[in-house]
Amino acid sequence: MFAQSAPVKRLPATLPACTVAVAEGDGIGPEITAAVLGILRAADPALAFDYVVVGLKAYEAGAAAGYGPEVMDAITRNGVILKGPITTPQGGGYKSVNVSLRKTLGLYANLRPCAAYHPFVETRHPGMDVVIVRENEEDTYAGIEHRQSDEVYQCLKLITRPGCERIARYAFEYARAHGRRKVTCMTKDNIMKLTDGLFHKVFDEFALQYPDIAAEHMIIDIGTAKMAVQPGRFDVVVTPNLYGDILSDVAAEVAGSIGLAPSSNIGQTCAMFEAVHGSAPDIAGQDIANPSGMLLSAVMMLVHLGRGAPATAIHNAWLRTLEDGLHTADFFREGKSARRVGTRAFAEAVIARLGTRPERLSAVDYPEHEAESLVHPPVAAAPHRVATKQLVGVDVFLNWDQPGRDANALGANLEALAGPQFKLAMITNRGVKVYPQGMPQTLRTDHWRCRFPAMTDGSATPQAIAALLLRLAEAGLDAVKTENLYTFDGVRGYSQAQGE
Amino acid sequence: MFAQSAPVKRLPATLPACTVAVAEGDGIGPEITAAVLGILRAADPALAFDYVVVGLKAYEAGAAAGYGPEVMDAITRNGVILKGPITTPQGGGYKSVNVSLRKTLGLYANLRPCAAYHPFVETRHPGMDVVIVRENEEDTYAGIEHRQSDEVYQCLKLITRPGCERIARYAFEYARAHGRRKVTCMTKDNIMKLTDGLFHKVFDEFALQYPDIAAEHMIIDIGTAKMAVQPGRFDVVVTPNLYGDILSDVAAEVAGSIGLAPSSNIGQTCAMFEAVHGSAPDIAGQDIANPSGMLLSAVMMLVHLGRGAPATAIHNAWLRTLEDGLHTADFFREGKSARRVGTRAFAEAVIARLGTRPERLSAVDYPEHEAESLVHPPVAAAPHRVATKQLVGVDVFLNWDQPGRDANALGANLEALAGPQFKLAMITNRGVKVYPQGMPQTLRTDHWRCRFPAMTDGSATPQAIAALLLRLAEAGLDAVKTENLYTFDGVRGYSQAQGE
Repeated sequence: MFAQSAPVKRLPATLPACTVAVAEGDGIGPEITAAVLGILRAADPALAFDYVVVGLKAYEAGAAAGYGPEVMDAITRNGVILKGPITTPQGGGYKSVNVSLRKTLGLYANLRPCAAYHPFVETRHPGMDVVIVRENEEDTYAGIEHRQSDEVYQCLKLITRPGCERIARYAFEYARAHGRRKVTCMTKDNIMKLTDGLFHKVFDEFALQYPDIAAEHMIIDIGTAKMAVQPGRFDVVVTPNLYGDILSDVAAEVAGSIGLAPSSNIGQTCAMFEAVHGSAPDIAGQDIANPSGMLLSAVMMLVHLGRGAPATAIHNAWLRTLEDGLHTADFFREGKSARRVGTRAFAEAVIARLGTRPERLSAVDYPEHEAESLVHPPVAAAPHRVATKQLVGVDVFLNWDQPGRDANALGANLEALAGPQFKLAMITNRGVKVYPQGMPQTLRTDHWRCRFPAMTDGSATPQAIAALLLRLAEAGLDAVKTENLYTFDGVRGYSQAQGE
Repeated sequence: MFAQSAPVKRLPATLPACTVAVAEGDGIGPEITAAVLGILRAADPALAFDYVVVGLKAYEAGAAAGYGPEVMDAITRNGVILKGPITTPQGGGYKSVNVSLRKTLGLYANLRPCAAYHPFVETRHPGMDVVIVRENEEDTYAGIEHRQSDEVYQCLKLITRPGCERIARYAFEYARAHGRRKVTCMTKDNIMKLTDGLFHKVFDEFALQYPDIAAEHMIIDIGTAKMAVQPGRFDVVVTPNLYGDILSDVAAEVAGSIGLAPSSNIGQTCAMFEAVHGSAPDIAGQDIANPSGMLLSAVMMLVHLGRGAPATAIHNAWLRTLEDGLHTADFFREGKSARRVGTRAFAEAVIARLGTRPERLSAVDYPEHEAESLVHPPVAAAPHRVATKQLVGVDVFLNWDQPGRDANALGANLEALAGPQFKLAMITNRGVKVYPQGMPQTLRTDHWRCRFPAMTDGSATPQAIAALLLRLAEAGLDAVKTENLYTFDGVRGYSQAQGE
């Protein structure tokens, strides 16, 4: 057991003054925030706090988004915010505060370290120490959805080169700055050859610029499965938004410590740090909540700010507190823990151990570095010439529901309407070719993608597309959307249909 | 140990004659197919085989798709195919045979039973017995991708009401037919409210029609995480294509038996049965491959055909063979297995045990039922009236890359071009509002979504959209795609932007 009377204090040398925005949030937020700020004050006296109100209190005070403009000002001014958990009110009109802040502030990287603290926290994977770097803005999470017919709903998955460059660069910079040796990229580019293919390609481009870091790619299905059973084989993983959402929850559960899990959301000009867990209103105000998730998020914040010494002191003191068996109710185990402690007592125990190091768990040693060196990373994207784009046709999507849904009838109709600038190449239904020569087994919804390549080189023009849409409308056909077909430097920029 | 000399044969009564298509596939395919067919012949003498060639041999013989029209004929004629693993040749032009067959035949349900065979196969979750019902045709797997600018690539995620109805009905019918008690639906409908929202909504509609089966919904991120650590809480899980792809690999790994895992692909008129594992060309022809994945797929096929007695006999004999410690190299363990056996010897051991039951593992008892009762399920979708659709505007996506990428400049330009039928409501970049009143932190790619609602009720028409596109083209603006905005029965059929 730790001797309360004799902590060997090795507190950090004086650091420059620095202010961070703080929002305590809802539910257990106020009490865990108080605990965390107490520890921060003890470990890093030069750190000041700029308090803002985010969440239910702000909403009830009239801020429809859950935060007012003063919050954006505070984050922008200070560059970082430490945020408690937020309760999302039920019912319409109120979007997630977290999602709103991420998107509005351009917080493109979501970092989720998932570590095991065996044997003090139960896990089947004692050595696990993985960091998931999740792209945070793109993918189907751009939130662009359209219902296009009675039967068919669509969501756009957008993947962009600058978005991929940001996140790939960040993953490698993070790995290098934190002494990690390997970055694994996970995508489904065997199916989504253009979108996920771009993510993979940009990852490979950056991998060449970091020869000191191993790089590998896995398909997301087997990659997630391996994370579930062999997490020790991973170090840093970078992946698009949706996959990262699933993968990071799997990794946190497997580590056994989702209640302890910290996270950060990194942008070019600011960053937000928060625990992964929610606001737990059922146990709010009882001094029993575990402040560890928010505390480890604060450690990430200090590291991000270049304040390695207090980050090291807090993290090691926290590990020592775990070892000493002072456990909050959520991971207290009779016979294994020494004492069940409340939120405040846990924080006091961590403060008492500042300057000590863990004896069984691995101690951390964060380097001092320039603040925000990760936000403005030094490595540029590979030189990229803007490709020459040529319009070569258009996919027109029809809402068409004639009796029998006979693709041959629709095809004949469209053949007559395509010329002179276009020809009809095919019709698909949910991506499967139904004209010409469809299969009877294919399900026919009321939503038909009709591919019109240019009749001759250069005959596809914006004017020709507008004219085609007019001809379709005059024929009583209901075009609900278009997707132009392009080549880029002569390479086809669109997928072919199954069976094309 | 099993007494070789005294098997108690309780072989099935005579069943009607039946023919199934069989493709042995590539790599280890021929030897495991031979093993499986030997067992089928012994257990179900009334079953005949219609051999077809699929995969590398077909490709090398000139079938570009990896199968010729005679394969489609055989599947259509027989209604089922038992297929060995396929090697996908490297290099362009050759699409996955499995994907092609699934899509062309309309095999909308992918079934993946994931069971633990503790202690004969290592697993951390001995009681696990989960069936994943994965939607097999929709989602981002429709394969509709377009590169739209130098920087931005798009994939369409399509979710349709008939697609959701098929798979929800199938999941509940499957649960009822197989004595299962709960179906869990997993989506991400807190983010994708229209597409995943539809999947969830249709699931809830069908749940009402199966009061004997418990129904629940989970968000896919935490659902996959729970599958990784507490698979025992699940019974049947139904989920869209992409999530199902990831979830089924996680479940198979967690069960410890991905090498034993069978699967089926179910359509309205035919079904395909195959092992989950690949063709393993490195061990082909050595009589060491494990035929269990394909054998359990054949059991699923017999159950599907209503041939419960031979299905029961084979499955129980296989379980008994596991118990007796006769193990192929992939799961042979020194000191725990009794004997390492080859492919042929394993099949012979199963045949010798036909009519016996396992003593420690749970025996199965498949009922006899009408063939294909699952394919034409009795429960209809809830009555559905076609909604009244009204065109209320259009989203036009521009590829725009003027120096500075100033959304206010673009906005001013578009304000002038919108009228008289439309007004400009907003511009977003990757789903985040950048006009009016954007935030400086938002990344601006070269791809801008410009929302034009109708100026007055009824002023949005197909002709007005064509005219708008012409005005944009004449102003030198490059529209790369459109998405019409509709209401359905007066309800908005499109998402709003973050910050709208």
